[in-house]
Amino acid sequence: MNDTVLADDLAQACAVAMYARDRAAQTMGITVLEARPGYARLDMTITETMINGHDIAHGGAIFTLADTAFAYACNSRNEANVALQCSISFTSAARLGERLVAVGEQRSGGTGRTGVYDIAVLRADDEELVALFRGVCYRVNGTVLQEEPES
Amino acid sequence: MNDTVLADDLAQACAVAMYARDRAAQTMGITVLEARPGYARLDMTITETMINGHDIAHGGAIFTLADTAFAYACNSRNEANVALQCSISFTSAARLGERLVAVGEQRSGGTGRTGVYDIAVLRADDEELVALFRGVCYRVNGTVLQEEPES
Amino acid sequence: MNDTVLADDLAQACAVAMYARDRAAQTMGITVLEARPGYARLDMTITETMINGHDIAHGGAIFTLADTAFAYACNSRNEANVALQCSISFTSAARLGERLVAVGEQRSGGTGRTGVYDIAVLRADDEELVALFRGVCYRVNGTVLQEEPES
Amino acid sequence: MNDTVLADDLAQACAVAMYARDRAAQTMGITVLEARPGYARLDMTITETMINGHDIAHGGAIFTLADTAFAYACNSRNEANVALQCSISFTSAARLGERLVAVGEQRSGGTGRTGVYDIAVLRADDEELVALFRGVCYRVNGTVLQEEPES
Repeated sequence: MNDTVLADDLAQACAVAMYARDRAAQTMGITVLEARPGYARLDMTITETMINGHDIAHGGAIFTLADTAFAYACNSRNEANVALQCSISFTSAARLGERLVAVGEQRSGGTGRTGVYDIAVLRADDEELVALFRGVCYRVNGTVLQEEPES
Repeated sequence: MNDTVLADDLAQACAVAMYARDRAAQTMGITVLEARPGYARLDMTITETMINGHDIAHGGAIFTLADTAFAYACNSRNEANVALQCSISFTSAARLGERLVAVGEQRSGGTGRTGVYDIAVLRADDEELVALFRGVCYRVNGTVLQEEPES
Repeated sequence: MNDTVLADDLAQACAVAMYARDRAAQTMGITVLEARPGYARLDMTITETMINGHDIAHGGAIFTLADTAFAYACNSRNEANVALQCSISFTSAARLGERLVAVGEQRSGGTGRTGVYDIAVLRADDEELVALFRGVCYRVNGTVLQEEPES
Repeated sequence: MNDTVLADDLAQACAVAMYARDRAAQTMGITVLEARPGYARLDMTITETMINGHDIAHGGAIFTLADTAFAYACNSRNEANVALQCSISFTSAARLGERLVAVGEQRSGGTGRTGVYDIAVLRADDEELVALFRGVCYRVNGTVLQEEPES
């Protein structure tokens, strides 16, 4: 077994461990489709409880999907990271029943203990871009698999 | 009755109308405490279903509260506005059972049909800052009270 | 001549017209290397007057390069656009004498009159990422080639 | 002499030391008007070399002023900090000859070694808001007064 396989296995083990504790992701119906070092792909379907006062998907629901992809991508090496700063641009409205896919990728190791990740949220059907998310994370002490990170 | 009272009444009517349709805010247990022109104050308590894989409140839950305060503040004049871009900085973790208050205020009418709003999310108990959110909105056609905005 | 050639010619004409008026870009030694619809590639070399109190390139100089690439990319169709909101993440320090290249690309037509662009700033020598910039623009009245945009 | 006075003196000493090395701020004609712990107030006048292709102040010039206020505010305790991520919303165009004032304030100590600062850029004449800037900084090793920070 080579290092890439080991790193992929570790990323998947981190995703499984995080998801088991991640009641928010579970409650939203978010599924982890793929996890690799610095990368995660997740999906979520827009349900009735995610609709806002303009009758489209609440920005908070789309953010939650993107932020979860960010979390799984930046915690994929069994080093605990927390989100410092996130930005999201909404490019197209999502509607009831649509399945969204979030693809998160590391762009930079950043400065010191920090990193930068880009997450694109696409409508599954036609791959239209729904949102662009960028997150900056900060590595805290602790690991994903065995211990809790410091707050 | 003076103009300020009328503007406040309109802001409250917009908040009531939006909330009635806002299944996402209802589902999260978000309450609108106050709505005035360009201003909204909301609260939400962190429940089990908002906890993430690090055993703290999911960034998506905090964002959803802030984004909802943004929506109610920028739709308070019965002109439909949608969020274009939002940024959030997480400054302190929130935990199970904590009540959070989001205070949203207009900072600028912006350029043309756009506006800028700042939302602070505070822990109710000790007023510690949990997150700073800034949103840019875009005025679409339509009103809050009678018609649906264009997507 | 096909439409792509015409669109590329228009983008280049817009870049030439903007650069002739753009004393800021000229003063910083910024060069436009390439302009196409929704795309621009520029470079700039870090000079003594761009160094800050930490003896590295001032964030403002790097932002200026990225923001200029954003401006040329989003004004490449002869419709005047202004920047609404920009975010930049600094991923590696740039130093005196280094040549930086900024590559700007449209990611979305956005909502209504708005658009989203991503600009990557790289060190020319080794292609190391120096900064990631994302901008939201707003189309005002007016064209690039013949009239001034409304403020 | 009490602690507040000592902290203010330290902030001013840091500002003086940084400014002496800050050729970018000097070149732009930026002046430090006030420096206190977690706070800085600077000004700059829009000159010919800061004008862009739309005949208004280049976003990069306004960003540079705001980013400099951020730097002086977050380095005011003689602990070296570098900018990780900055966002700026442009709310009103600035024109040739206008004097701008940037007021930077700490909003949070942030998570671990990080902090969040808000900088408002105002036109001096009428106090109209020109831009809102928010920055996240990261504390590196080293001090402002005696050593160089790690890159």
